[in-house]
Amino acid sequence: MKSVIGKNLTISLYGESHGKSIGVVIDGLPAGICIDTTFMQSQLDKRKPKGKISTQRKEEDDFIITSGVFNEHTTGTPIHIMIENKAHRSSDYHPELPRPSHADYVAHVKYRGYEDYRGGGHFSGRITAPIVAAGSIALDILKRKGILIGTHIKKCQHIEDREFLDFEDDIILCNNKYFSVLDENKEQEMIKHIENVGANHDSVGGILESCILNMPIGIGEPYFHSLESKLSSYLFSIGAVKGIEFGLGFDFVNHLGSEVNDELEIIDGNIQTKTNHNGGINGGISNGMPILIKSVIKPTPSIFKSQNTVNLETMENTTLTLTGRHDPAIFHRARVVIDSMIALCILDLCIEKYGEDFCL
Amino acid sequence: MKSVIGKNLTISLYGESHGKSIGVVIDGLPAGICIDTTFMQSQLDKRKPKGKISTQRKEEDDFIITSGVFNEHTTGTPIHIMIENKAHRSSDYHPELPRPSHADYVAHVKYRGYEDYRGGGHFSGRITAPIVAAGSIALDILKRKGILIGTHIKKCQHIEDREFLDFEDDIILCNNKYFSVLDENKEQEMIKHIENVGANHDSVGGILESCILNMPIGIGEPYFHSLESKLSSYLFSIGAVKGIEFGLGFDFVNHLGSEVNDELEIIDGNIQTKTNHNGGINGGISNGMPILIKSVIKPTPSIFKSQNTVNLETMENTTLTLTGRHDPAIFHRARVVIDSMIALCILDLCIEKYGEDFCL
Amino acid sequence: MKSVIGKNLTISLYGESHGKSIGVVIDGLPAGICIDTTFMQSQLDKRKPKGKISTQRKEEDDFIITSGVFNEHTTGTPIHIMIENKAHRSSDYHPELPRPSHADYVAHVKYRGYEDYRGGGHFSGRITAPIVAAGSIALDILKRKGILIGTHIKKCQHIEDREFLDFEDDIILCNNKYFSVLDENKEQEMIKHIENVGANHDSVGGILESCILNMPIGIGEPYFHSLESKLSSYLFSIGAVKGIEFGLGFDFVNHLGSEVNDELEIIDGNIQTKTNHNGGINGGISNGMPILIKSVIKPTPSIFKSQNTVNLETMENTTLTLTGRHDPAIFHRARVVIDSMIALCILDLCIEKYGEDFCL
Amino acid sequence: MKSVIGKNLTISLYGESHGKSIGVVIDGLPAGICIDTTFMQSQLDKRKPKGKISTQRKEEDDFIITSGVFNEHTTGTPIHIMIENKAHRSSDYHPELPRPSHADYVAHVKYRGYEDYRGGGHFSGRITAPIVAAGSIALDILKRKGILIGTHIKKCQHIEDREFLDFEDDIILCNNKYFSVLDENKEQEMIKHIENVGANHDSVGGILESCILNMPIGIGEPYFHSLESKLSSYLFSIGAVKGIEFGLGFDFVNHLGSEVNDELEIIDGNIQTKTNHNGGINGGISNGMPILIKSVIKPTPSIFKSQNTVNLETMENTTLTLTGRHDPAIFHRARVVIDSMIALCILDLCIEKYGEDFCL
Repeated sequence: MKSVIGKNLTISLYGESHGKSIGVVIDGLPAGICIDTTFMQSQLDKRKPKGKISTQRKEEDDFIITSGVFNEHTTGTPIHIMIENKAHRSSDYHPELPRPSHADYVAHVKYRGYEDYRGGGHFSGRITAPIVAAGSIALDILKRKGILIGTHIKKCQHIEDREFLDFEDDIILCNNKYFSVLDENKEQEMIKHIENVGANHDSVGGILESCILNMPIGIGEPYFHSLESKLSSYLFSIGAVKGIEFGLGFDFVNHLGSEVNDELEIIDGNIQTKTNHNGGINGGISNGMPILIKSVIKPTPSIFKSQNTVNLETMENTTLTLTGRHDPAIFHRARVVIDSMIALCILDLCIEKYGEDFCL
Repeated sequence: MKSVIGKNLTISLYGESHGKSIGVVIDGLPAGICIDTTFMQSQLDKRKPKGKISTQRKEEDDFIITSGVFNEHTTGTPIHIMIENKAHRSSDYHPELPRPSHADYVAHVKYRGYEDYRGGGHFSGRITAPIVAAGSIALDILKRKGILIGTHIKKCQHIEDREFLDFEDDIILCNNKYFSVLDENKEQEMIKHIENVGANHDSVGGILESCILNMPIGIGEPYFHSLESKLSSYLFSIGAVKGIEFGLGFDFVNHLGSEVNDELEIIDGNIQTKTNHNGGINGGISNGMPILIKSVIKPTPSIFKSQNTVNLETMENTTLTLTGRHDPAIFHRARVVIDSMIALCILDLCIEKYGEDFCL
Repeated sequence: MKSVIGKNLTISLYGESHGKSIGVVIDGLPAGICIDTTFMQSQLDKRKPKGKISTQRKEEDDFIITSGVFNEHTTGTPIHIMIENKAHRSSDYHPELPRPSHADYVAHVKYRGYEDYRGGGHFSGRITAPIVAAGSIALDILKRKGILIGTHIKKCQHIEDREFLDFEDDIILCNNKYFSVLDENKEQEMIKHIENVGANHDSVGGILESCILNMPIGIGEPYFHSLESKLSSYLFSIGAVKGIEFGLGFDFVNHLGSEVNDELEIIDGNIQTKTNHNGGINGGISNGMPILIKSVIKPTPSIFKSQNTVNLETMENTTLTLTGRHDPAIFHRARVVIDSMIALCILDLCIEKYGEDFCL
Repeated sequence: MKSVIGKNLTISLYGESHGKSIGVVIDGLPAGICIDTTFMQSQLDKRKPKGKISTQRKEEDDFIITSGVFNEHTTGTPIHIMIENKAHRSSDYHPELPRPSHADYVAHVKYRGYEDYRGGGHFSGRITAPIVAAGSIALDILKRKGILIGTHIKKCQHIEDREFLDFEDDIILCNNKYFSVLDENKEQEMIKHIENVGANHDSVGGILESCILNMPIGIGEPYFHSLESKLSSYLFSIGAVKGIEFGLGFDFVNHLGSEVNDELEIIDGNIQTKTNHNGGINGGISNGMPILIKSVIKPTPSIFKSQNTVNLETMENTTLTLTGRHDPAIFHRARVVIDSMIALCILDLCIEKYGEDFCL
């Protein structure tokens, strides 16, 4: 169960950066769901590097669905989506020199030297492409059920995007953008900042804020399978994520209970909370308000400055200066992976509660 | 699998605040482990209310081990630990008036009016007592393997504790305290603050910082079962936790890659990182450095001020003023639940990797 | 996950023959299900020894539901059912002399001498009582959905009961009997045979045939989670079961394909098979016909004849003659455990497919 | 979790008979295991049709390992093995006419008409090829640990093979044969019988007997995860299996306890049983004796005689006469699937108990 997640909707992931192919097996979807391969490709495109703010590696994410889809609809049996690796250079990797803050060193110890070190191997960000492909199916199903998911770049170092205002409009706005910032001025400011950081051979991180709109009330369980537990276990699957918070999150510490309790009220006959400091979740269970999640993406560890490291063969201290193609920032590309993981999580929980026909 | 967590070390939780008993079934421990019931009781005592900063409800946490332990050692078959409920008053609950920011309303919808509403029912913080009992066994096993776990109160509103300095000493210091603050002056300041907040009928939250020391390298998996995924899914099981971060966490956004990459170096023949901004985890896998986790505990939702809520029977807006026994702060009591959940998580992963004999 | 089974309806089992209590935690049932404790007790009574064909140990199976049930209905949170142990004699057990064909020797090796050997410890048939309590809830829910489950004693050595004729009537007949044989003459013959075997200090086994009637079409998955896989994994949980077959089972080997293929036909507008040699399952999936399962229960290993064994302390060959209270046959008592395990399995699969509201 | 099995060693299966590819993802194997692709191919060859006793469809099982293996050794991350489909004819399938005793009808209902019906789709026996590929790795690892697995054809209708005599020699003998019968005369007799049955447009089944030799003592758990539960859930994954028994199995009913109890004795300082009626398992746990399992494989449902069926479009009774390429018997080809599933099961349990380094 190391590369498998989900109980009623399960995905199983495989692949390495420089192997023959990467892919995912999806099971748990009922038969008869129309698969929108155009949407799948458009989601994959959001993960692709583009412009000066990304690596210049040209990744062809041409996916092939080899099973589980027949006449454009799910058959009810496992779906296998595969992406062949083509663009990799069989280049100059130095497995004996682990890159700081990458998984190189832990992989070397854990896998005792047998790891596929080429291009980061299984740890390559590229392996998230099949997650995006799988996620696009989940997003599409949820959308048809009225559940919308969107993520914007809340912060890039000191530059901060505005808050979600009209949730539905803003989610649509997010989902139509490659660089998902709500405020256009901030968008340009962030892009410029990333370019500058990149030109300076450095990298920068960001905070992504996600919203799940129109979540049914009652999803999530007390304690071990709280909605926060479930969502965080999906989101921390993404390598660069180092923190997750719901609603006010860490800011709760700055307030008294009387300031941040979400009082209840009836509006138009519906019970809702006057504020949403808890981000749509009480006691681990959705309360019907928008679910608000922030994820921090650390600065890309690949920078072009000289860094200290060790030589695993000679066991001596040394330095390393990376060359090649790297991203000065990845949070804008991680955005669609976040959306995908959220969708896969939420759909799993909905199928658990409502049964597989929920998807239809 | 709603009240069950863990793959190779599994716990199954049950109980309500005012039911006959609460308890936990533990399975996956090999035979022959000496059970230290004195330590178990001392851990339960850390969760008990004490002093003016806690509820005045006197909770007797007298546990009974009804199976799985014979002649003070584990038998290798499931352990059942039970705590009988005695102290509850069959008091004046108003299930029709959901308390703001509690689970009352979501429970009412999810369980369609059949929930045991007395004292919060299954959502009561009291249900974490069996977790602490189970966790004490895991903590004890890990300690014998040299893996130490400790948590201090990093922040209570504006008051901030010092950082971990000597990890081993500080963990021992934490574990010997009821109110776990490293700096004694800050400890007094925080307690005084909580008392003031409580006197003002309000409540306050905090940030807990945990350390796992001497973690073996190589625990955790890429992607879905990253160490962050695993730990966060355990920690978000605790109702009041609304954010989790590892290492620098959300502070990563304020720094460039060159500032926060953890460079590698050889010291005394061992490879380690010069800094520990990643909190002991790279690519989802432990790197041998101390694992550093921060969890935010929101202010206790039970406050004695008048609050807006709705009447579920009449479907009208109304107000509610709580009476009875409540905590102005719970983060100091949540601390031992955090330690317990971390220990149960880490032991599960170690058994998975090394087999059940790891525990011996 | 060693003492836990079920994905959407989960049971967690604990206890030893001579410990303080035995019990089960059930999770996954939605709120609002009326719990029929009278039926629960009547099912537990079917498992109790009775008459000369059983042990003379008087077992009080007075269960207590300590959580998860409020005002006689499920609350939606975990249910804990406990049975206190009272009747055990703190008698003359010889842990150094493993009883042939019991689990004594394997337990001794697996648990390295720490096992609770008193009365068979965790391996005691008594531990199946909580399974029966849990199963009674599942049987009751399924019955309300029209799905009936019943088991008769197909064979006791050479004595064979008649086949199921009218399935519904025969299932009701089974469920109303303590010694569940359809043909009354055969019933008397079997009881007499067991008494004779017991008087001769020996024991005897049997074949139980179970039927699941009105099974919805489409339950079960191809390959790993076939209905046969699921049902067999539940049924082989019962210690004495050494074989399981569906439909013709092993008798398939004696026939050509043309003799045993189940041809399809339309009767009254419904598609069904003309014969039911496949026992209601094709390709791992229910086909709507009655599901027919045979389980063989081996002769009780506890016999009063002198048997060869080894002394684990002196490591010498020796003999052992059991004394005390033992059953010459247990298959008639195992019957209700079989029904319970089948019901827990089928309900889990139905909840998976249809969602938790299936139970309502 | 519908196409996924295993806890610590997990396989995830996908594919349809006439899709682009079939395959399996394997996770849980540690890094550094040498993959013997020659053995993998030789195992796949045992599943291929050969001679007059099989279908004339020529299946090319040219597997590709696209990830998880680097420099001929496992990398520790997921392994993906894929087999492209080439040989299928896009022939004359009649989805409206379900073949008796096949999964056609249940698939049609379960998947509401969206199933890939070509060549049986996901239900095709061809999908077991990736299982054999995965199983070859498990078999190889177990063999290096001294654990041998082999299966012979115990019975083909009235023709019965001899018993296992010298277990080690006989397992080697089995594993070197395509048509795995221990007694050469019986082998010829069975082949001739199958040819006759085939010539008569009919089909025939068989009983396979498997042995696991040198099983460590203590594998398996009481109750829900008994060794019988685990093995049977793996074996019933194979579509044609309709019964499983351990040791004497159903024959237990014909004997008294005194005749079939396995008495213990010390031979050369080792404790073992004098007989092995329980097939190496007591109380769900391996006792060190050879584990003996019988599986019945029903006659192939594809026969060339006219059969009654229904027309799903017109909802009328009709008849069907199959044409094309079919096997008069498949049990000899199922043999290697049985061995593979047993190996995957046993290795999973060994990794659970001993940790992942067991594989090295």
